[in-house]
Amino acid sequence: MRLLLSNDDGCHAPGLAALRAAMATVCDDVVTVAPDRNRSGASNSLTLERPLRVREVDDNVFAVDGTPTDCVHLATTGLFDEDADMVVSGINTGANLGDDVLYSGTVAAATEGRSLGLPAIAISLVGDACVHYDTAARVAVSMVRLLVAHPLPADTILNVNVPDRAYEDLAGYRATRLGYRHRAEKLIADRDPRGRRVYWIGPAGAQADAGPGTDFHAVNDGFVSITPLQIDLTRHASLSSLSDWLDRL
Amino acid sequence: MRLLLSNDDGCHAPGLAALRAAMATVCDDVVTVAPDRNRSGASNSLTLERPLRVREVDDNVFAVDGTPTDCVHLATTGLFDEDADMVVSGINTGANLGDDVLYSGTVAAATEGRSLGLPAIAISLVGDACVHYDTAARVAVSMVRLLVAHPLPADTILNVNVPDRAYEDLAGYRATRLGYRHRAEKLIADRDPRGRRVYWIGPAGAQADAGPGTDFHAVNDGFVSITPLQIDLTRHASLSSLSDWLDRL
Amino acid sequence: MRLLLSNDDGCHAPGLAALRAAMATVCDDVVTVAPDRNRSGASNSLTLERPLRVREVDDNVFAVDGTPTDCVHLATTGLFDEDADMVVSGINTGANLGDDVLYSGTVAAATEGRSLGLPAIAISLVGDACVHYDTAARVAVSMVRLLVAHPLPADTILNVNVPDRAYEDLAGYRATRLGYRHRAEKLIADRDPRGRRVYWIGPAGAQADAGPGTDFHAVNDGFVSITPLQIDLTRHASLSSLSDWLDRL
Amino acid sequence: MRLLLSNDDGCHAPGLAALRAAMATVCDDVVTVAPDRNRSGASNSLTLERPLRVREVDDNVFAVDGTPTDCVHLATTGLFDEDADMVVSGINTGANLGDDVLYSGTVAAATEGRSLGLPAIAISLVGDACVHYDTAARVAVSMVRLLVAHPLPADTILNVNVPDRAYEDLAGYRATRLGYRHRAEKLIADRDPRGRRVYWIGPAGAQADAGPGTDFHAVNDGFVSITPLQIDLTRHASLSSLSDWLDRL
Repeated sequence: MRLLLSNDDGCHAPGLAALRAAMATVCDDVVTVAPDRNRSGASNSLTLERPLRVREVDDNVFAVDGTPTDCVHLATTGLFDEDADMVVSGINTGANLGDDVLYSGTVAAATEGRSLGLPAIAISLVGDACVHYDTAARVAVSMVRLLVAHPLPADTILNVNVPDRAYEDLAGYRATRLGYRHRAEKLIADRDPRGRRVYWIGPAGAQADAGPGTDFHAVNDGFVSITPLQIDLTRHASLSSLSDWLDRL
Repeated sequence: MRLLLSNDDGCHAPGLAALRAAMATVCDDVVTVAPDRNRSGASNSLTLERPLRVREVDDNVFAVDGTPTDCVHLATTGLFDEDADMVVSGINTGANLGDDVLYSGTVAAATEGRSLGLPAIAISLVGDACVHYDTAARVAVSMVRLLVAHPLPADTILNVNVPDRAYEDLAGYRATRLGYRHRAEKLIADRDPRGRRVYWIGPAGAQADAGPGTDFHAVNDGFVSITPLQIDLTRHASLSSLSDWLDRL
Repeated sequence: MRLLLSNDDGCHAPGLAALRAAMATVCDDVVTVAPDRNRSGASNSLTLERPLRVREVDDNVFAVDGTPTDCVHLATTGLFDEDADMVVSGINTGANLGDDVLYSGTVAAATEGRSLGLPAIAISLVGDACVHYDTAARVAVSMVRLLVAHPLPADTILNVNVPDRAYEDLAGYRATRLGYRHRAEKLIADRDPRGRRVYWIGPAGAQADAGPGTDFHAVNDGFVSITPLQIDLTRHASLSSLSDWLDRL
Repeated sequence: MRLLLSNDDGCHAPGLAALRAAMATVCDDVVTVAPDRNRSGASNSLTLERPLRVREVDDNVFAVDGTPTDCVHLATTGLFDEDADMVVSGINTGANLGDDVLYSGTVAAATEGRSLGLPAIAISLVGDACVHYDTAARVAVSMVRLLVAHPLPADTILNVNVPDRAYEDLAGYRATRLGYRHRAEKLIADRDPRGRRVYWIGPAGAQADAGPGTDFHAVNDGFVSITPLQIDLTRHASLSSLSDWLDRL
C-alpha cells in the first residue's frame, strides 16, 4: 500500500510533520506532496495559468509552488511511476467544520484523491491553540488501519475533526453531518502604509446550525467528528420541481 | 432588485460584457465585481494571506486582485451599502459540466451568493470557439425574469450550460444532473528556457458518465442544461453505514 | 519613428493615458506595453519562473501579467515585428528622486530600452495629490521633439521629475544629479484578521542630500529635474584601490 | 560583529547552506533572512502591495515570502533589535557578470545592505553545473576576514564571481569592471496545454564586452572577479552636455 500525504498549511507545518511520523508506523511506502507555502482557503483551485515546480525538500517529501489540489493532481497524474492507494490530508491547524469545507484546501486535497483505490481522509485539529497534534495523528492511524481491514467505497471522502485535547480525553467517535455557519463577518477595510485602501476577507461566521447530529455538535461535546462527503454536487431532490419550473420558460 | 455580476475569466472577458449588456435590460441596478485577471480553475478559493484591492474600472464595474469567491465575498460583506438580491456569474468561455464544477470559479462565484435573497446562476457557453455569447445572454435574461416572477428557494444554485449556437437553434431547456469525467489527463512535463523541469496541469478527462439525464447529454443534444447544485456536501446516504463502521474502532 | 510606452502603475493608470494622448501628437506609430496591475517598486525585475501572457486591451495597448521590465523586454525581443526607436515610461504617479530610482519600475522600463536607437525617458509627476498629468505630458512632448531634432547618445537614460503644477507655473528645466534619502522608515508590524504577524515595507526615508544640483533641490524649487542615468554600475574610481586591497589576500 | 546573509535562490538553496556554514567559522553572530522561493531576476524590487510574512525555518534562518530586497530591508528596518554590520549575499548558483547585475537579486540583497557599517558582498559561482560551492565559501571567508582587518568604505558593494573549480585551481583575484552582454536572446513563444499563447523571457545575451579588465575576462581566465559597484546612478560625465541640450527647450 502506498499512502499519499498532503495538506494546505504547507510543507513546513507541524501538523504535516506529526502526520508523516504517524503514517510511517502504518505503512512503509509514504510519499508527501504539499504546497511550499500556507495555502489555507485554497479550496479545489487548480493552477492553470502557469506551470508548477516540484522540489524534494526531504526524503520523499515534495514541495510544490501551487495549491493542495495541484499537489494531489500532479501526484496522481504522472509525477510518480506508481499510483497511491489513498490520500490523507492534514493535520490541519484549526477546524474544518460546516461550510468551512467549501473553502478548505485540506478537504480539497482529499477530494482530489477520489479516484484512487481507497477512501480519502482530511483531518483537522479543532482548537484555538492547536497543541495535541499527536491526538489527531493517533486518530489518523486508527482510521487508516480500519480502512485497510474493512474498506469503505473508494469514492468515500471522510472529513475528520479532532478536538485539541489528549487522546484519553476524547469522548469517542461520531458519524456526523455538516452543520453550517452564519454569514461571514464583515470585510475588514484598512489602509496600506501609502494610504491606499485595502480589504481583508473577514473571519468565518459563527455556528448557525450546530444541533445534534452536526459536526459542530460532536466536536463541542469532545467527540471526533467524521463526516462522509460527496463529490456529486447535484441537488437531486430538486430535479423534478426544477423541470416543472423550466416548463414556464 | 439589485443584481451582482461576477465571473472567473476576469473583468475584461467578452462573456462578462455580454452578460452586463443583457442584465441592463432586466434591471436598472446592476453592479459587477470581477477578478482583474483570468482566474479559471479558482474554485471556491478565498484569499486569506493578503488584503485585496478594488478598482472601479468602469461605471459600477469593480476589479479585484483576487478570486471570483473573493469578489462576491467582498460584495456581500460590506463593500457596498446595499445588499444584492442575486448573483449571476459568467458567461464563462467554455463548459462547466460534470466534475468541472468542483474547480470552476464561475460556479464558485454563484455559490458565494448563496446567502442572498434569490437563487444564484452560473452560466457557461459550451464550445471550442465560443462565438454565441448573445445566445447565453438571452438564456440568462429569460432565467432571471422567470426567477423574479416565480422564485425558487433562495439557496438554490443553478449551473447553466448553453450550447454555442444561435438562440433559434437551441433544442430547448433541460433539468439535468451532473455527469462525470474520466480521470484527468496526464500532467505535461516541460522545461523552462533555463533547462529546469516544470509541470503543467493536464486537460480535464473525457466524458465518462454522459448518459441520459446528465448535463453532458443535454448539451450534446443541443439543449440548455440546468443543474440544481447543493451546498451541503454531506453524503447523507452513508451516515448510518459509517456509524456502524466506526463502531469497530 | 516608433515609440514604445510603458509604466509601472499599470495599464489603467491615469498617467499612462495622459502620456499616450500626448505622444499621439508627436508620432503616428505608438505602441504601449504595460503591466496589467500596479507594479510600483518592481525595479528591473524579470519574471523568469513562469511564462507571461499578453492581452491587447485597447488599440495598440498591450497588458502583460508581469513587471515593467518584462513589458519592455518582450516588446524588444520579438513581440512585434518592428523595433521601437525609443522608450518613454510613465507618467508615474509620484516622485522618482534620489535612491527611489533603484526601486522604480518606471525607471527600469526606460532602462530596458537602452539598446534601442534613441535615449529612453522615465517621467514622473512629483506631488502628493498628482493632478497635473497634462503638465508632465507637455514636458514629455517637448523632450521627445528635442531628442528627435538633436539626438543624445542612444544609451542615455533621462530620469525626468515634474512638479505637480500648471505648465505655466514651472520654473524651467534643470540638469541634475541624484540626491539621496535617509535610511528607510521602520517596517510596519501588523496582524492579519486571523491574528498572524505580518510586516509592511515602511515608507522611503526623508531627503538626506537635497542640496543644490540635486533632483530634490530642482523639484523643490519648481523646476523640471532631468537626471542622466548610467547603466554601468562599476565604481571605476575604486578600481585601483580595490586592486591594492586584494593584494593582501 | 553581526553578519546578515541573504540570497535570491531561496532559503533552501545549496549555495546559501554553504555560505552559512562558512560564515559560522568567521563570526558567532550570523543571521539569515532569505526568500522562501527562488527569486532569481528579482533585482531591487520591493513588495509594496501586500504585507510580508516571516517564518523561522531553522536556527536564526528566516524565510520571507518576498524578494531578496524585501529580506534585507526588513532585517535592517526593525525585524531585529540589533543592527547587522555587513550583508553577504549568495552563493548564487550561476554567474552575475556584466549587465546581469541589473537584474540580479543576489546583488540587490547586497545593495540593500548599503547603509550598514561595512561593505556588502554579493558572491556567485560561475559555471553550468555549479559544484564547487566550497570554493566560493572559502573566497567569502577570506574576503570577510580581510574586510574586518582592513575595512573599505561602508558604502562599497563588491560583486564577486568565482569560477566553479577547486580552490587550488583558482588563478587568483582580480579587481574588474563590469563587461556587458549583447542584447538578450529572442523571447520564447509557446502555448499552454489549453492552447493559449504564452511567452517566456529568453536567455541573457552572449558576452559582448569581455575584453581585458572585465569581469567576464577574469572569470574566463580562472580568476575570482571582484567588481566594486556604485549606487549613485547619475551619469556625472553627461551633466554639462545635458545642461546645454536643455537650453534648446
